[in-house]
Amino acid sequence: MKKIEIYEVGPRDGFQNVADYIPLETKKKIVEGLLDSGIRHMQITSFVSPKAIPQMKDARELTGYFVDKFPDADFLALVPNLRGAQGAWEAGLKSVSYVVSLGESHNQANIRRTHQESYDELLKIREAYPDLDICLDLATTFGCPFEGKKGAGDVVPFIKPYREAGIKTVNLCDTIGVANPAQVRSIIEAVRTEYPDLELQVHIHDTRNMGMVNTLAAIELGIVKVQSTLGGLGGCPFAPGASGNLATEDLAFMLAEMGYETGVDTPKIVELAKYQAEAIPAGQFSGHLFKIQARD
Amino acid sequence: MKKIEIYEVGPRDGFQNVADYIPLETKKKIVEGLLDSGIRHMQITSFVSPKAIPQMKDARELTGYFVDKFPDADFLALVPNLRGAQGAWEAGLKSVSYVVSLGESHNQANIRRTHQESYDELLKIREAYPDLDICLDLATTFGCPFEGKKGAGDVVPFIKPYREAGIKTVNLCDTIGVANPAQVRSIIEAVRTEYPDLELQVHIHDTRNMGMVNTLAAIELGIVKVQSTLGGLGGCPFAPGASGNLATEDLAFMLAEMGYETGVDTPKIVELAKYQAEAIPAGQFSGHLFKIQARD
Repeated sequence: MKKIEIYEVGPRDGFQNVADYIPLETKKKIVEGLLDSGIRHMQITSFVSPKAIPQMKDARELTGYFVDKFPDADFLALVPNLRGAQGAWEAGLKSVSYVVSLGESHNQANIRRTHQESYDELLKIREAYPDLDICLDLATTFGCPFEGKKGAGDVVPFIKPYREAGIKTVNLCDTIGVANPAQVRSIIEAVRTEYPDLELQVHIHDTRNMGMVNTLAAIELGIVKVQSTLGGLGGCPFAPGASGNLATEDLAFMLAEMGYETGVDTPKIVELAKYQAEAIPAGQFSGHLFKIQARD
Repeated sequence: MKKIEIYEVGPRDGFQNVADYIPLETKKKIVEGLLDSGIRHMQITSFVSPKAIPQMKDARELTGYFVDKFPDADFLALVPNLRGAQGAWEAGLKSVSYVVSLGESHNQANIRRTHQESYDELLKIREAYPDLDICLDLATTFGCPFEGKKGAGDVVPFIKPYREAGIKTVNLCDTIGVANPAQVRSIIEAVRTEYPDLELQVHIHDTRNMGMVNTLAAIELGIVKVQSTLGGLGGCPFAPGASGNLATEDLAFMLAEMGYETGVDTPKIVELAKYQAEAIPAGQFSGHLFKIQARD
């Protein structure tokens, strides 16, 4: 039985799309529920300016609480710069996702840096925190809202300097939900051919109803860590009205039905998604399973 | 470039799940819009008892209007019995989908017949209307709400007598939305091995978020006719709250992105799905694209 690690990113990419602050107690309940459902890999928050993303203002408190309490789980935070890395390190994390967008105009819009500035910042982080494990979260891998579609010819050379700087894991992120399975396959195959010992992950949004099909395309090419969010909580500032990320519980259910082992208890996580939808009524949810009601 | 025929079944499987009668003029506008968007294959209605499904009471009028007006399009109706076949034939149709459920208890619940009775009825239809082209719509191919999961060992022997009765096309229907890609592949491969010259189609619901992934699994095994509904209009009496069928416009978009040719004009059909959602506010829609709003 093949193992797939579902890497939950709802507490970061889900919560961050909710305008009103979600109380820390609600966040704790959801993270605890995720751990209790069998999730062991989680992007728990991001260390960013609380002025830019007020939802993440409790990053240190939330992280500290869980890092101490669940030493066996694999927690990461997303960081865009040295200051974020410092916050994550001081909160007790050993790993971070360092986000850079493949589309330079998206990188400017998202974190106000050129590609060169993002790269230089990474070198500073590596120098300041040599023991911090860094995964490159490559945003807009499949398409940029300003620059359009991206392909293997864009992705492969972009990764090169990061590889040289010691990055061992790259997370291919379909930030705006424009990927299709043919593109997922061609990019993964090209990156793998060029960097055979690089660990690849995928982060797929369900914006255009291709969350499951793109993620399965990656899994069937041998990718074993895939990201999703509880309930499909998420959204996209570039596609108002669009549904969010791929839903963790839907993915867990499909994989179990297909004979994969994820360690996730599907009925339990479906109940948790129901709880979350009640606790965060303003959220945008793309999940299907938790909306199905019991028959009378 | 590989051609895929998107076989629209919204006017049958979508409309039928809407409790309140949809005015004939609205139905006509939607069917006209579908044809105008490039759809050439359509299950336009079902010929069933208007007492059982009042939504379909205009079957003859709707069918007659389009059969005369669009002789180049490929219209079918779903029929459960000889009387339905008579209605379809008299309305001018040359083809019907004859529905039988693989799960006998679902067949009883749905059309009040045993398997033997359904088979005997087919023979009567063939005798009465020898020039009527009949596709077997095999409901609950992947799972039955009463009997549970189904596999190749159930499907392959079931088809045999229908094959002997001259059926040339079988439509594998995931009526309650429980299929997964591994199962879709194993059933298609087994049926094909046994009946290499049988034409296979698939009809996949999006109940559990596997509409796209199951349909693509079938397409990548060489299936060239796949069913879906505009906007994903549909539902499932066995899963209240569940989303409907796979959305035609989402499927058309994905296939176009992957380089398949469907003949469907995606922007046009997305607009039509928006119109439909306004015209049928009580509908359950699983489509993603039509919900994305234009940015200001």
